Amino acid sequence: MEDFASLRNKLIELTKKQLGEAVSEDILIIQALASVDELTVSLNTLSKRLREWFGYILPELGHKINDHESFIRLIVSKSFDELLKEFAPKGSMGIKLPDEDLNIVKEFSEKIYSLYKEKESLIKYLDLKLDSFMPNTKALLGSTISARLLSGAGSLKSLTRLPASTIQLLGAEKALFRHLKTGARSPKYGYIFSHQLIQNAKSVDKGRVARSLADKASICVKLDFFKGDFLGEKYLKDLEAKFRK
Amino acid sequence: MEDFASLRNKLIELTKKQLGEAVSEDILIIQALASVDELTVSLNTLSKRLREWFGYILPELGHKINDHESFIRLIVSKSFDELLKEFAPKGSMGIKLPDEDLNIVKEFSEKIYSLYKEKESLIKYLDLKLDSFMPNTKALLGSTISARLLSGAGSLKSLTRLPASTIQLLGAEKALFRHLKTGARSPKYGYIFSHQLIQNAKSVDKGRVARSLADKASICVKLDFFKGDFLGEKYLKDLEAKFRK
Repeated sequence: MEDFASLRNKLIELTKKQLGEAVSEDILIIQALASVDELTVSLNTLSKRLREWFGYILPELGHKINDHESFIRLIVSKSFDELLKEFAPKGSMGIKLPDEDLNIVKEFSEKIYSLYKEKESLIKYLDLKLDSFMPNTKALLGSTISARLLSGAGSLKSLTRLPASTIQLLGAEKALFRHLKTGARSPKYGYIFSHQLIQNAKSVDKGRVARSLADKASICVKLDFFKGDFLGEKYLKDLEAKFRK
Repeated sequence: MEDFASLRNKLIELTKKQLGEAVSEDILIIQALASVDELTVSLNTLSKRLREWFGYILPELGHKINDHESFIRLIVSKSFDELLKEFAPKGSMGIKLPDEDLNIVKEFSEKIYSLYKEKESLIKYLDLKLDSFMPNTKALLGSTISARLLSGAGSLKSLTRLPASTIQLLGAEKALFRHLKTGARSPKYGYIFSHQLIQNAKSVDKGRVARSLADKASICVKLDFFKGDFLGEKYLKDLEAKFRK
């Protein structure tokens, strides 16, 4: 009986260890990507709120600076008097507020700004991870698209098992099922749509470029998974040469 | 002609000044409330993401701590080894990660934690603002409900012009229009629903309590707007005595 109990404990230990090992780099990349995406949404909401709030205090600033991050960087890096001098030298249309109210808005801006920094550092982390985990795919497609493909497939292993045509359409599931259901036009690309080769191609060529790109991507993920040579950069140059004409 | 130009400039100056004065405390309270609400949504998304991410590293922690804020406070305040010792003394089922990966997760947690702090400080600010701007309403209904009513009406001035029955239903617009359109049951309360008097009342009494509360609230907003006596606390006690039996 004692033997049985000790065997049981050993098996539990073993299961724990194996569970720990089952989780790998894939997961970390997928989680980091999801965090970046969720930060982007939150940053957008909070920045718009800050814009509206600050719009009552110094409307001239929001009028001139359209980019959210630059807008917030200005509020964080300069004092209110400096901003007033720079953006409304003839006097602002906004309300004059006591320091106590200004400080609250400034504190809020600082927190939002530090979230922008956090997003940057997560993107840098993602970059480093992909450099070692999917060097070929990253060289061909860039960090964001590579991470999205990984996240779409669930793991690098499942990604290697997808045919090129599926890689081409990962991320376009909605359009694909609409096509299958209603006979609408079939989608030509999913996540890879934002790749510069497709972006720069003429409208009529986009589908063709997407297919070639997905072909190479399907080779790259296999090279990455089976630790093959580094060919991603070469493939990208080949495609660039082919579609430049 | 010169006279005309100088008159024009003077008028522009005057308009700017009046515009600045047209914006008042109302706006600051409404903006702070909206910020708190948007922070709440963002915090929820980001906390859930962190939970999932950290769940691969030390699943035992998320299993024991259900509250998001406490969960994150633990990650921020203790080292990973301390957490491991406290929550998985027999060894964790999670993956063993190098410091570099752990630090990224920790940094992410710190940013989320500082957003929780920001939310607290905005709530404190809201409290202070309401103390001076709507002391009676705040005493009767508490900060959150008072600020929501203000935000629903647009300003304290418009709030004073609403009948008690409208104050009772502010925030229940969807249910009210459904009632008008489809003849479904009419709503009994809007924002004031979360007030402790209504929460503690029996089901059959809730409507009656809501009506009395809205009656008093309608007096309180007028007292606040016209700078009357401080009666909010007395009204609350009256209502408590009336509905305790």
